[in-house]
Amino acid sequence: MIRSIEESPLYPIINPRSIAFFGASNNFLRMGSMMLSSVQALGYEGKIYPVHTKEKEVRGLPAYAAVADLPEAPDLAIIVLPTDIVCQTLEDCGKKGIRRAIVVSGGFREAGPEGVERQKQLTAVARRYGIRFLGPNCLGIANPYRKLNPTTITAEGDPGFVGLASQSGSFITQMFNYLHRQGLGFSAAVSVGNEANLDIVDCLEYLGACPYTKVITLYIEGITRGKAFVEAARAITPHKPIVALYVGGSEAGRKAGLSHTGSLSGPNEIYDGIFRQCGILRAQTLAEMFDYALALGTLPKPAGNRVVIQTHSGGPGATAADACGRAGLTLPALSADTVEKLKPMIPKTASTANPLDLTYSLNSSENFYNIPDILLGEKNADVLLAYILSPGIFVDRVLREMGVPEEAIPAERERLLAQHAAEFASLRELHPDKPVVGFTYRSLQEKMVRSLLDRGVPVFPDPERAARAIAALLQYHRGRDKAAAGKRR
Amino acid sequence: MIRSIEESPLYPIINPRSIAFFGASNNFLRMGSMMLSSVQALGYEGKIYPVHTKEKEVRGLPAYAAVADLPEAPDLAIIVLPTDIVCQTLEDCGKKGIRRAIVVSGGFREAGPEGVERQKQLTAVARRYGIRFLGPNCLGIANPYRKLNPTTITAEGDPGFVGLASQSGSFITQMFNYLHRQGLGFSAAVSVGNEANLDIVDCLEYLGACPYTKVITLYIEGITRGKAFVEAARAITPHKPIVALYVGGSEAGRKAGLSHTGSLSGPNEIYDGIFRQCGILRAQTLAEMFDYALALGTLPKPAGNRVVIQTHSGGPGATAADACGRAGLTLPALSADTVEKLKPMIPKTASTANPLDLTYSLNSSENFYNIPDILLGEKNADVLLAYILSPGIFVDRVLREMGVPEEAIPAERERLLAQHAAEFASLRELHPDKPVVGFTYRSLQEKMVRSLLDRGVPVFPDPERAARAIAALLQYHRGRDKAAAGKRR
Repeated sequence: MIRSIEESPLYPIINPRSIAFFGASNNFLRMGSMMLSSVQALGYEGKIYPVHTKEKEVRGLPAYAAVADLPEAPDLAIIVLPTDIVCQTLEDCGKKGIRRAIVVSGGFREAGPEGVERQKQLTAVARRYGIRFLGPNCLGIANPYRKLNPTTITAEGDPGFVGLASQSGSFITQMFNYLHRQGLGFSAAVSVGNEANLDIVDCLEYLGACPYTKVITLYIEGITRGKAFVEAARAITPHKPIVALYVGGSEAGRKAGLSHTGSLSGPNEIYDGIFRQCGILRAQTLAEMFDYALALGTLPKPAGNRVVIQTHSGGPGATAADACGRAGLTLPALSADTVEKLKPMIPKTASTANPLDLTYSLNSSENFYNIPDILLGEKNADVLLAYILSPGIFVDRVLREMGVPEEAIPAERERLLAQHAAEFASLRELHPDKPVVGFTYRSLQEKMVRSLLDRGVPVFPDPERAARAIAALLQYHRGRDKAAAGKRR
Repeated sequence: MIRSIEESPLYPIINPRSIAFFGASNNFLRMGSMMLSSVQALGYEGKIYPVHTKEKEVRGLPAYAAVADLPEAPDLAIIVLPTDIVCQTLEDCGKKGIRRAIVVSGGFREAGPEGVERQKQLTAVARRYGIRFLGPNCLGIANPYRKLNPTTITAEGDPGFVGLASQSGSFITQMFNYLHRQGLGFSAAVSVGNEANLDIVDCLEYLGACPYTKVITLYIEGITRGKAFVEAARAITPHKPIVALYVGGSEAGRKAGLSHTGSLSGPNEIYDGIFRQCGILRAQTLAEMFDYALALGTLPKPAGNRVVIQTHSGGPGATAADACGRAGLTLPALSADTVEKLKPMIPKTASTANPLDLTYSLNSSENFYNIPDILLGEKNADVLLAYILSPGIFVDRVLREMGVPEEAIPAERERLLAQHAAEFASLRELHPDKPVVGFTYRSLQEKMVRSLLDRGVPVFPDPERAARAIAALLQYHRGRDKAAAGKRR
């Protein structure tokens, strides 16, 4: 195990001070050009040296005819060239003194016997020069904290706490937007491709040591170094959660993985066993993996599985209750003390059962502060799950009816919704040991929910996803406690 | 069973020509006022008679001090009054000759023994006057085709083909926005509340006969008239699919339902049996229910369960393959003939397996027309599932790099994306017997996907939801064929 992030062979790849870029040109339709364009768009502050046999300048940067001509040996080479010249290029990089590379080009192990042979040559070159590299057949890395995104699609959203190591490049470059919409962002993301040199175990070690990464997520089609993987994961999960999506378990998933990165998968049961051994949570879908990450990265350890649900509509209360039940969570009755405190604040028609159904009520500041505050004080409950319904169109109508002039409505609505979000989010300071979770059936991008997400309050687009994420949070902490107790014995 | 929609006792409630409105006032903070405001906002063209003891005018409409004063007996009374005056008001309506009502007020069966007694009185009044009513403790109906939305929240989106009968009012009023975002809309939605008079069976019969309703969805906390429910459903499912969400099966769901509408639930197994008997598909979540509705309402009957996946990224291809495998769908190999046709159109790095992974390719018109056209011609496949990735930011960047002036980019981008959507959607005409389904990890509201949804091509926000919806479509048609074969024997 590495003791600090700088020890990782991935460190210069994820945090390069300078990059030699092969395959970018002034023809924008080339993949390499797009990747360089993404780097420029996010504002990378290191040095970029495009290498191009003909162009004097590439995308506004002085270009070099050969890597030998560079004024220094950059930290990293990114190679997006036709398959047949990749080996020679890596060799040239080695001669120049470059010791890290991302080989984006495909046509290796995933492309049949000839490709397998070619991949052997590539690793031999790397070995000769002491080069550590990602790929081939990968999309490299994204490090929003260094404003570095050498992938095909422009980055969106802010840096976050999700570390991703992926056997699919798509899930690096195509997830910026998805993560942002769910209230998440990458701390660092690594696409390992065919794993000819650096692999998912190296990523685990890097992300385990990465201070920005609060939760590690893994997209896996097949693990090669099983023992090393288990060892690395076991060292990490006691202090940092790992969530894995494994798609090689079904026949269809296995075949797709094989033609994608040539990886060897195994039955679900084997992978379940591996994950269990080292305290990794297994997600069944990509959405679930990031849902778990959201809960794990934002919520404190719950004392137990008892959830109190706050709703002002019976149906969403019932679907949330049902979802909690199916996820192994329980819904304790509210204690007499809590009911007593609630009484003055809730309408006669409200139910003081759990779910607490406030029914029709317009005093939304109580809904988003006083009432959840009381529920968080409930000694029989460990988690608050609140239904968030505060659409702008609804607020607009109320304001309009209250006589607020039409032109003042948008600003007043935004102010009100931001205030509700701030109040609700501030409850975490009063109850630091109790997870506060929301769900909604409206868009996560509407003001109040977006504002909660931006403040680090997890809100899920349906109660089932919320309940499963809470269950995953519990599972992680229980596993961790059990492992710690085992060690103490 | 009813032979036409007009025979349904619900017909005048869902399609009233005139409404007496009790409980709306000039105090907007009253629930009744909000409901009347929603009616006015959607532009209902029938007559509205607010009844108010003090106000001469309510929300701009002439008000009547008593229902006896109305110039006619309206088709429908909507009652949003304090619990204690509901019975008397219904009696007054009866005397006036009104024969249909929606009782929104709560405080009946769901509110303990006293409420049970009160509900008995209410039904007795109705019996005496031959009144059929929805509720109490409900939100009534929404009928977008009549521009009628007497619920608490303003309607959003267009009318659609989803009929909903719900034991939760929230799922009527709070789902407009959700449905619209998924490419759906209500044909008619009914909140049954405590079902003191009209119940979910009546709704089934209405929606079964409703020409706008292509798929019936049910939110169920507990069924009272089991035998009638089964009979009604069995008569409908051979010609119109029904999807049900039942939440009373878990302990938590059961309790929530009890305090919500006082309904009596039963174990999951019993409900599974009921649903199976009458060909109803059971959804596990609200999202799933509407996902199934989207597939059932837009797609033709697939010949079988063989899916061909089109992707240009390995990861999404693999998650889709895995999702199909888990949903009981198979991924046939592409025939030699198909591979031959594809070859000239796809890059060297592409995989001609299934998923067909186009890898990096910029010729998006081939991606969205020629290539899926070939895949839809594949004789070994019954369904096409395509990964849709065409973000505006990506198109913008390409246009900018091609030298399109900055001010011309937005319009050009919208035009291009709409064109791709139109081309892709037009494939359904060439292959009318093969379901065409999309999935994306980006927002459904981005231009191309939104345009597909608007054209009735189902696109799901992840491959698992797409695969499960395809499986539900198959399940429905297999059940229907089996039932038809049984009848012929």
